[in-house]
Amino acid sequence: MKTDIEIAQQATLKPIEQIAEQLELAEEDWEPFGRTKAKISDRLLQKLEDKPDGKVILVTSINPTPAGEGKSTVAVGLGQALNKIGKKAIIALREPSLGPVMGIKGGAAGGGYSQVLPMEEINLHFTGDLHAITAANNLLAAIIDNHIHQGNALNIDPRRIEWKRVMDMNDRSLRNIIVGLGGPKQGSPREDHFQITVASEIMAILCLAKDLEDLKERLSNIVIGYTYDEQPVQVRDLEVEGALTLLLKDAIKPNLVQTTENTPAIIHGGPFANIAHGCNSIMATKTAQKLADYVVTEAGFGADLGAEKFLDIKSRIGKIRTDAVVIVATIRALKMHGGVPKDALKEENLEALKEGVKNLQKHIETIKHFGLPFVVAINKFPTDTEQELEWVERWCLEQDIDVALTDVWGKGGEGGILLAKKVVEKAASPQTFQPIYELEDSLEAKIRKIAQIVYGAKDIELSPKAQQQIAYYEKQGWGNLPVCMAKTQYSLSDDPKKIGRPENFMIHIRELKPSVGAGFIVVLTGDVMTMPGLPKKPAALNMNVENSGKITGLF
Amino acid sequence: MKTDIEIAQQATLKPIEQIAEQLELAEEDWEPFGRTKAKISDRLLQKLEDKPDGKVILVTSINPTPAGEGKSTVAVGLGQALNKIGKKAIIALREPSLGPVMGIKGGAAGGGYSQVLPMEEINLHFTGDLHAITAANNLLAAIIDNHIHQGNALNIDPRRIEWKRVMDMNDRSLRNIIVGLGGPKQGSPREDHFQITVASEIMAILCLAKDLEDLKERLSNIVIGYTYDEQPVQVRDLEVEGALTLLLKDAIKPNLVQTTENTPAIIHGGPFANIAHGCNSIMATKTAQKLADYVVTEAGFGADLGAEKFLDIKSRIGKIRTDAVVIVATIRALKMHGGVPKDALKEENLEALKEGVKNLQKHIETIKHFGLPFVVAINKFPTDTEQELEWVERWCLEQDIDVALTDVWGKGGEGGILLAKKVVEKAASPQTFQPIYELEDSLEAKIRKIAQIVYGAKDIELSPKAQQQIAYYEKQGWGNLPVCMAKTQYSLSDDPKKIGRPENFMIHIRELKPSVGAGFIVVLTGDVMTMPGLPKKPAALNMNVENSGKITGLF
Repeated sequence: MKTDIEIAQQATLKPIEQIAEQLELAEEDWEPFGRTKAKISDRLLQKLEDKPDGKVILVTSINPTPAGEGKSTVAVGLGQALNKIGKKAIIALREPSLGPVMGIKGGAAGGGYSQVLPMEEINLHFTGDLHAITAANNLLAAIIDNHIHQGNALNIDPRRIEWKRVMDMNDRSLRNIIVGLGGPKQGSPREDHFQITVASEIMAILCLAKDLEDLKERLSNIVIGYTYDEQPVQVRDLEVEGALTLLLKDAIKPNLVQTTENTPAIIHGGPFANIAHGCNSIMATKTAQKLADYVVTEAGFGADLGAEKFLDIKSRIGKIRTDAVVIVATIRALKMHGGVPKDALKEENLEALKEGVKNLQKHIETIKHFGLPFVVAINKFPTDTEQELEWVERWCLEQDIDVALTDVWGKGGEGGILLAKKVVEKAASPQTFQPIYELEDSLEAKIRKIAQIVYGAKDIELSPKAQQQIAYYEKQGWGNLPVCMAKTQYSLSDDPKKIGRPENFMIHIRELKPSVGAGFIVVLTGDVMTMPGLPKKPAALNMNVENSGKITGLF
Repeated sequence: MKTDIEIAQQATLKPIEQIAEQLELAEEDWEPFGRTKAKISDRLLQKLEDKPDGKVILVTSINPTPAGEGKSTVAVGLGQALNKIGKKAIIALREPSLGPVMGIKGGAAGGGYSQVLPMEEINLHFTGDLHAITAANNLLAAIIDNHIHQGNALNIDPRRIEWKRVMDMNDRSLRNIIVGLGGPKQGSPREDHFQITVASEIMAILCLAKDLEDLKERLSNIVIGYTYDEQPVQVRDLEVEGALTLLLKDAIKPNLVQTTENTPAIIHGGPFANIAHGCNSIMATKTAQKLADYVVTEAGFGADLGAEKFLDIKSRIGKIRTDAVVIVATIRALKMHGGVPKDALKEENLEALKEGVKNLQKHIETIKHFGLPFVVAINKFPTDTEQELEWVERWCLEQDIDVALTDVWGKGGEGGILLAKKVVEKAASPQTFQPIYELEDSLEAKIRKIAQIVYGAKDIELSPKAQQQIAYYEKQGWGNLPVCMAKTQYSLSDDPKKIGRPENFMIHIRELKPSVGAGFIVVLTGDVMTMPGLPKKPAALNMNVENSGKITGLF
């Protein structure tokens, strides 16, 4: 059996101009970045305004486990399968961050015969979007500290600066720092923190902006901190929104690549799925809708986080209609939700499956609540037994749930044809979409609805700090923004140890953060890590590029 | 009269594939980055090994003044002029850093009708080289702190870490910081410092590497700090050279663009001219030599710093023969060296010129000492009077010095034809090149030779720390490396106020730094700023990109 990297390095990529031609792009609509990557013009969307939109298929999953669900692999495989059954499809995914690539996970975008290529490029600097976001984020930080240093005309309280510096790196030593030491010529000392670039509000903004104008408007709205009188200070007060937009003028353009089977893929934007909304960009999804009949996309973590935010935040802001949802599960992951430890996953265990499938059940209920047609995709692993696969299929059929076994890792698009056919059927069926909450609901009501309807919680518990913040935010006129929940991805509850389908639990709201530029209020349950650390043996130590140019150790 | 930005935005750029074709590049030899930028393969040099090398013309200048000398403009104009007189020429320059662009100076690469284009791209993210260097630099920093956090098997002394984090930004608050606060899970607290990316040793390495293999070797050699036993710790001890090289695999490829007159230009690498050697990359210069008959390049600051390092460091490592030197001066700058304040420069002042020309005289002596043929280029300004221009020309002729008036700012290549003709003649004349020092000289002897021969100093004065360091470095076997002087650019001495041609002064050596990866020992005279700050009104505040995509305020 070939490894991911062998499959990737043996794949024959088409020159990117062929992919662009296939999508009927004119020369003015795209720019090459190397021979196999391109950027699509941010003006194409406007140019094709009158063209009908392709259908959107959202791929989501059960709560992630260390066993792996293969959501990206299924998304890529489904796109390829749609092409195979004669549909014009594009895959629209998030772009990876360098930090985790160098840390634990190495590179990845799909797997096996369902990968997005060129892997080496996508997982390293790609077309520079994340570097542009880093630069814009840190220009803003430098402007803030310089403003204070040069007299602080805006009366910014250095103890209440919310804006943090970022780096696209896993670097725990930068989590808590003191800057501005060394005397009056070196700035004002204050406590500061670095986040990883994907946690920057600018990443969320880039992904929610409709065009360059909207990008600038959202950047202007960023609240960077507060004055000594506790009034919010925004980017527009610092007059730096023009320079920030300038730094992002190329990053806003969606990136075009292809899969192992030469299906077009747009890889653009990758905000954190906890303190941000975890979806690829609105520009990418909408551009893809103009260029294909089916757009397969995904959202971070399980349906409780990714799909909820896709449907309540991204789709609402972008006015995107979702035509069908795919809920991915694996036998292995369901068994883990049933209590099986990782080293016993190879053994057949129908009892554990029976318990673990309750996690899937909850996510199915959530998608039903949204009123969207869906298919369950069981992503096959070589260790799955016939009995286990049959049991899950039967479980679905008994409840009248459409299910498809897929083997897109091993067979590429061919392994997802059944899923593709079911998805096409579902996407043509009627739907009565409703969001979980209305924007007019109070912040507290929004949080409660998500906790109860999506997580299955008994209720929410607000800390005194959270209560105070809600009152302040509503006074500032931010009460009508959607809420972006930051919760552990491993459980439906806020306790990562509660796997399967926990019941009778409370969701504890610790703190809120205003991402007024992005256009949502972040709601933090428990601690959220926004700057990962490196493990004892970082993945970077295995990486190499040989003198021949051959890359090793990246996957 | 049109402004630089008007000229730039009105220029008609050729598609970059036309420039590539003009240079007879095959498809495998280059990759597009957008429609008007490209990267040239790092393997081209090897492929064209047997082709004869084009001649190298080094453009240098008198000590810089606030009046401006226009060294880059003359270099671009000379390249264009060589084309106009039927020679195949390429211009090889350094790439700019984002920090100063956002800080004081806005964007620039040449001026008037002698600019390198596309300006907006070159001055913002360009092809991402600086971002790649930032990422590699900071991955190394994260690996160092993680190594200590995970048990410190190498026994690294956290008080003696020389490796600093970098950011491509002017951010004074990051000059002196404390990292690793927050308790045992957040790393070990220690003092740290950010530098601007162009001050990273990795930038110097990228510019001095002969190929990918040499790049990896030099990265392995970096000394990141010392153990508790005061033994040097190198990158190879941390086993991260493979990942660093991987991050730089595209950054090492020279960037191809064009000038306002469509002359090919290779813009690659931009190390600081104080704590590094201030020249574009060896790969770029040597690649250009394979593609053209004349390569016009330049080096940072005046001939005392840039030309000395070009000839003693870059050319020695790269085995580059310099065929002729152009020494640029302006009437305005010579008058400033003669003591005229900036607001009186418009007035004719032959007395000041007579005094100021002594600065030029010293640099002429230096180039003569190197044994290289040269031409003095007087870069015309509209405020220069006929009398002044005649006086300088006569002064040159009286000493049998070749001089050419140029007006490349106002007239492009046309304004540099006389200079081009003289340069062609000089480059064909015999030379007896000798470096200022031999590698076998002791570190102290090398420093003394530069101070006496190039700066005209009486002698050097070593601080006790510097003496101690020299002894330690020679014991470590680093005594045979070239020295890289960090000195104020404004004066031949180490006191920026001593303009003109100071005499009877000492050069005070404060401290040394081993850039063992780059392959030189940095010698610091006085304080050297490696992280600039923003001014009260940063240039960024004027920048904008309109909804139409039009950029304003960048120049």
